[in-house]
Amino acid sequence: MRIGELSRRTGVSVPTIKFYVREGLLPAGELTSPNQASYGETHVRRLRLIRALLDVGGLSVAAIRGVVVAVDDPEESVHDVLGEATKPLVPRYDREPGDGVEEARKTVAGLIAARGWHADPAGPAAEALAVTLVALADLGHGRFVEVLDTYADAAEKVARADLEYVAQHVAREEFVESAVVGTVLGDAMFSSLRRLAHMDASNQVFGPQEQGGGAE
Amino acid sequence: MRIGELSRRTGVSVPTIKFYVREGLLPAGELTSPNQASYGETHVRRLRLIRALLDVGGLSVAAIRGVVVAVDDPEESVHDVLGEATKPLVPRYDREPGDGVEEARKTVAGLIAARGWHADPAGPAAEALAVTLVALADLGHGRFVEVLDTYADAAEKVARADLEYVAQHVAREEFVESAVVGTVLGDAMFSSLRRLAHMDASNQVFGPQEQGGGAE
Repeated sequence: MRIGELSRRTGVSVPTIKFYVREGLLPAGELTSPNQASYGETHVRRLRLIRALLDVGGLSVAAIRGVVVAVDDPEESVHDVLGEATKPLVPRYDREPGDGVEEARKTVAGLIAARGWHADPAGPAAEALAVTLVALADLGHGRFVEVLDTYADAAEKVARADLEYVAQHVAREEFVESAVVGTVLGDAMFSSLRRLAHMDASNQVFGPQEQGGGAE
Repeated sequence: MRIGELSRRTGVSVPTIKFYVREGLLPAGELTSPNQASYGETHVRRLRLIRALLDVGGLSVAAIRGVVVAVDDPEESVHDVLGEATKPLVPRYDREPGDGVEEARKTVAGLIAARGWHADPAGPAAEALAVTLVALADLGHGRFVEVLDTYADAAEKVARADLEYVAQHVAREEFVESAVVGTVLGDAMFSSLRRLAHMDASNQVFGPQEQGGGAE
């Protein structure tokens, strides 16, 4: 198809499609004449992936480039590609780790060991968790670490469901792309569900039927 | 304290502090002379909140302004302020909802009803969830909706733990600020834990011991 039809099919404007090609996010179309290129279903799919990572995942163009380069790499093992492709999806915090970071790292390493997780206690996800714990402590919520196990239980159940879904419904050649999609959109899904569950809990505890303070 | 000490205490530069005051994120200091202002512990705390929302939560300055305006509003009930303060924390997607959105909204409303959640099926969190389901379907993962209940279970357990923490450890006048912190940093915490649990699951399924495909 021509670029105009690709644009209509995906809802992405022609200049934006050209920008993605220049930025290395989308493969160029096949040249059918010196100034005309032809695009196929892989382009439609890739554009949907880019838009999901941008709009729903909130990823930067640079992070998405890292994802698609890893997705397209035919050399690596699935496990390695999964690691590379999901690395840009780990939150990277623009802050100094702060004073309590060594202790927070120990907490995280202890959690990984206690759960018997085969996960790198010095990797980016573990570091992101440690930095989050420091931020909580700085804000006076150091004891929030008491609910860490509840969160870890929930994360384990969700991760297991993710993998079961992949095993049942995803073709092997689509593993990596699906892992990226599932990581980003699964986070968004959980985050929205947590908000809904909070509303329910807040309604129970602070709802209009119960008067909160001194007001009439 | 003077602005220089506030900057040292919080690691936020003086120009940035002034920017936050101009943008309405941070209350101005108390003027002690025509060109000197004095800051207190509330400023330290508020700066830490702003930095956590910016750096860990990835919120925009406009979204943070919405949060702090709600946090500082003495008029509303706790339940209403919680709703207002956490509204800017709901992901807002920069995309057209797409064709399947009506069906996705029905799925979300059905989930809320089935769980008996007191949560608005037309509110921003429900809408964000519906848009996420549409994005998944667009990418060929419409069946991911099968794991929605596992995610909802996990979200419910986490939300309950959040509220228990608040009930046990948070003073009533700090409820709203704590809810904001817990919403943003709790999401970050869960997201990192889910990555760690994925690594463990991926190692089990695709790890180096098992050869994935045709490669030696």
